[in-house]
This record gives sequence, structure tokens and C-alpha cells, in this order.
Amino acid sequence: MFHLHAIYHKQGNPSKVMAPEVVDRRNTMLGLKTQSLEMRTPKATKTAVLVIGGAEDKLHGRKILKTFFARAGASDAYITIIPSASREPSAIGNRYTRIFEDMGANRVELLDIREREQCKYREYQSSLESCTGVFLTGGDQLRLCGILADTDAMGIIRQRVRSGQLTLAGTSAGAAVMGHHMIAGGGSGESPNRSLLDMATGLGLIPEIIVDQHFHNRNRMGRLISAISSHPDRLGIGIDEDTCALFEKDGWLQVIGKGSVTIVDPTEVTHTNEPHVGASDPLTIHNLRLHVLGHGDCFHIYQRTVLPAVYRLSN
Amino acid sequence: MFHLHAIYHKQGNPSKVMAPEVVDRRNTMLGLKTQSLEMRTPKATKTAVLVIGGAEDKLHGRKILKTFFARAGASDAYITIIPSASREPSAIGNRYTRIFEDMGANRVELLDIREREQCKYREYQSSLESCTGVFLTGGDQLRLCGILADTDAMGIIRQRVRSGQLTLAGTSAGAAVMGHHMIAGGGSGESPNRSLLDMATGLGLIPEIIVDQHFHNRNRMGRLISAISSHPDRLGIGIDEDTCALFEKDGWLQVIGKGSVTIVDPTEVTHTNEPHVGASDPLTIHNLRLHVLGHGDCFHIYQRTVLPAVYRLSN
Repeated sequence: MFHLHAIYHKQGNPSKVMAPEVVDRRNTMLGLKTQSLEMRTPKATKTAVLVIGGAEDKLHGRKILKTFFARAGASDAYITIIPSASREPSAIGNRYTRIFEDMGANRVELLDIREREQCKYREYQSSLESCTGVFLTGGDQLRLCGILADTDAMGIIRQRVRSGQLTLAGTSAGAAVMGHHMIAGGGSGESPNRSLLDMATGLGLIPEIIVDQHFHNRNRMGRLISAISSHPDRLGIGIDEDTCALFEKDGWLQVIGKGSVTIVDPTEVTHTNEPHVGASDPLTIHNLRLHVLGHGDCFHIYQRTVLPAVYRLSN
Repeated sequence: MFHLHAIYHKQGNPSKVMAPEVVDRRNTMLGLKTQSLEMRTPKATKTAVLVIGGAEDKLHGRKILKTFFARAGASDAYITIIPSASREPSAIGNRYTRIFEDMGANRVELLDIREREQCKYREYQSSLESCTGVFLTGGDQLRLCGILADTDAMGIIRQRVRSGQLTLAGTSAGAAVMGHHMIAGGGSGESPNRSLLDMATGLGLIPEIIVDQHFHNRNRMGRLISAISSHPDRLGIGIDEDTCALFEKDGWLQVIGKGSVTIVDPTEVTHTNEPHVGASDPLTIHNLRLHVLGHGDCFHIYQRTVLPAVYRLSN
């Protein structure tokens, strides 16, 4: 478990670079203010992929956005924001720009990509080659994929995420695109059935998973179960609002935030009628394994093991 | 499986009492019309408990209500309707009375019990002691329990269900009361948490289960998971509209109808934070087993085994 607890502590421990009495203890989680003033020396970033269920806190504790900021390098972070999912990209992009500037990022850039053509722009590619964090905003996941999929810009992001040079975050539509198979839309309030959902191809950054967001908030269990019935070789991950599944490179995810992350694991499924029924017929699926995870809980997407949050001595 | 497939066939097989050519094949499932005309001799009823998710078809195929009718004795059935959950008991009661009379029941009685005092009425108790089927309508499950719980009338029903003398059905509120623990109300659209639901004590006819109805239709997965987190010694059963879990005395249930029956089985749960968190904090629960069952699927509530609907040779 220690590598997961280390998330908040590993990056730029202030005690190494300043006298303890200088640290402003009110900036509890990361000592952000003091870091941004005092620490400008490069350090290794421990990259991750943050898959956020939408509506993350942008005003108060901002726990999830601060975690992204920290994993992107904290005061050394060079953050690139891609608002292409949104129909109001400059408004939403500027909002995130201000947030990460307020936190003390070294550099924040808004790549207002509205057309696939722009993915070839040399200055955009240069930004993606140098940054330490990429943030995908919410909006429409089909729009986001339509602009980014199979572009040079996306190739740079993918390669740098894989090689651990970049921390990537996506919220809402930006989360939906993470899997190879993507839930593009759908409904609720019905027995699980294929007509409940529209599937499309995502950006495939974590191909093993199918993500659904605003999960319990919008009652999406039925459509995630339907998606997994059709794709039992994947892992269903439903993420509530203001909640994040933070994926480490080693396969562990940890839950951060206010709600829950629901894992729908079909490894042991013995039967589904999915191949045999019509699109609006009720789907059956037997022997799903279901985990409802909360803040601090961990799950390994390859081993399919779950670890509860540890009750620490200091709590 | 044969004992489950036998549901539609065991009762009053027309071929035993009339020449095959007399059977009207258009009355496919039970040959109801011909039975009601020709078969008035008593026969053993194979009793069951039908837990119906509400909004069952009352006009066309009426598959669930016909199954109840058959299991209550078909043309020999003496059916007693208890509409006490409803605030319009005579309207809803009369509707079911007409339905079962139309099907050809030998006798249908409406026990319009509105006060606990009425549960002592000799003629009501006499009806419950002689009937072959009891039907609990929808309405408000707290109202139904408030009127029936711990009364002599309820005692008669319970004893006769246990000893296999009575087929019992409940729809909607009438289904919610079946367990010992009852979901009395609640919400959706949140991470599972205790404040999502109000629990109360049900009528305990199948004490091992916690029932939720209108299940996927009203997005109730979150509240059923919450209920099971608080009561991991029970089995969660979520029943969609126009769908029925038909419980045999031996522990098997079979699904009948248009939607799905969702089983939330906590047998293998390794962890829940339920004892440690506040009422509105998100609940965690690890290693639930989840089955989404459809028409013809079976599940054994003691063995916790699931059997898919058989693809019959005749199909």
C-alpha cells in the first residue's frame, strides 16, 4: 500500500528544501504556496492517469485538481489544457488555466484545438512534447474523439503517457475517452439492454477499461452493465462526480474524492444472453463481481484485487 | 431444471381431462378458457410466492398474473385480494377482482382491510383460512405493514404459506414487504450511502431477502447496495416492472416477465466501511456478486447458484 499513500507526499517534500518552521501548515496537503515560491528546481515527476467523473470541486478543497497538479510536477508543472470536448472551449479552458496558475504551476497553456487540422500545428505539438501534464476537459466525448483520434498530437500524448513522461487527466467527456471502447451516450431507467447505450471507439489510453462518468449521479449502472455484457473482455469503471480513479503505471488505481468508483468485473461471468437477444431485449449476465470503492480504496486492474483504505494511525 | 420448467405445465394439464383436439391452442400458456369450462375437480396446488416488481401487465398477455392464477389452483382457485397498501383500496381491489374472475377463478374475494381492527373479523380470517391464493396490491409498504404486521390475519397467511397451502403474490409495495428488512423509501442519483434509504421491518415471509421493486425503472441499484451494505446477512433482490421472482419452497426462484431480476449477493464480501462512516458518507463494499437474471433464469437463495434459462429444443 505504501506506494499509494505516497501520492500526496512524494513530490517536493518541503522539509528537504526549507526549514520546517517556514512551512505554512495551513496549506496542508502539499504546502503549495511555499513550494511555489521556494522550489523551482526540476525533479522527477511520478506520472499517472487521472480519470475524473465530472463536476470535480474547482473552488474549495480542489482535492482532485490539486492531485493532478502535484503529479504533473507541482510548482514545476507545465500544464497543457485541451478543451476540445466543449462547445465553449475558451471559457472552460480559461477557467482551468486560472485554477492551475493559482496553484502555482510553472507554465499553463491552453491548446484551443477545434479542428483536426490544428493537431498538426508545430507549436501545439511542441507544447505536448514539453509539458508535464495534459488536462482534457468535459463536453462531448464524440466531439473530443472526432478532433483528436489518430492525430499526431494524440500520438505524442499517448507515447509520453506510456513512457511515464506525462500525467494525463480527463474529466467527464475527457474521462469517457480513456478506454478503447467508449460509452458515447445512452439512457437509464430500464432493464439493462443494448439499446440503452451508444458505443464508439475511444482514445484507448487505458484500453482495458470501459469508463462511465457522473455514474451514480445519473443512474448509469444499467448502461455500464449493458456495455460489459457486450464487451466481457473489458473492465467496467463507473466514476461518480467529484471523484477520481487515479491509475498508476503498475496497474493499481486509487480512488480520490467525494463519491464512489464502481468496478464491474466480468472475469468470472458464466453466462450472458447478449449474443442471442435483440437490441431492446433485457440482457442477462451471471456472476459479475462488483466493488463499490471509496476514497483511499485501491484496485489492481490486471490482478483484479481490491484493497480497502487503510485506517492510519494518525487518523 | 425440470421442476422449474414444470411451472406452466404441472397444473391441470388439459390432456388429462379432455381429448387433445378439444384444447384451444390459442390459449397457449395455460389453456385457460377450456380449463375454466371443463375442469372443476379439486387438485393439489403447487404453491409458490410471487414477488412482482410492480406495473405488471394487466391487459394483454398477463403472463405474471396468469402464473399466479395457475399456481393458486387455476379454475379451482379461491383468490383473496388484500388492497391495504393502497389509498384507493376498493378501486385497485376491484380491478384485480375482475382480472381473476375473467381468468375463471372459482372464487375471488376482496378483503378491504383499512384498519388493524379489521384483521380480527371472523369472516376475513375465514376467507384467509380457506383461500388458495392471496394477492397483495401496490401502494405504500409502510401502510401495508402498519395494517397487517403481527395481526391474526397475517398469522394465518404466514402459517399457510409456510405449510404450502397458499400461493402468495405481492406487487410493488406488496413485494417490498416480503423480507424481514424492508426498504420503506429512498432516493437515487447519489453514491450509495445510508441516507439514500429508509429501512423498516417488513412482513418477513421470505426473511432472507431484501426486495426492491420498479428496480431499474427507478434506478434503485444504489439504494439496494446501500441496504445490503447495512445488512450483509441478507440477499438483495431488485425486481423490474412487469417482472416477477417466483419463489419455490425449495429455495429456487425463477424469473418471469419482461424485465430483469437483479441479485446482489454479499456472501463473499471482504470489506465494507458501513460500520465506520456517517449516514451521508459514501459506502464502500468489496466483492459483491451480481447477477442480472432474465425470463426463465433461476437462482437458489440458499445455495446461491444460478442457472440460465434453457434453450429448449422446441424453441
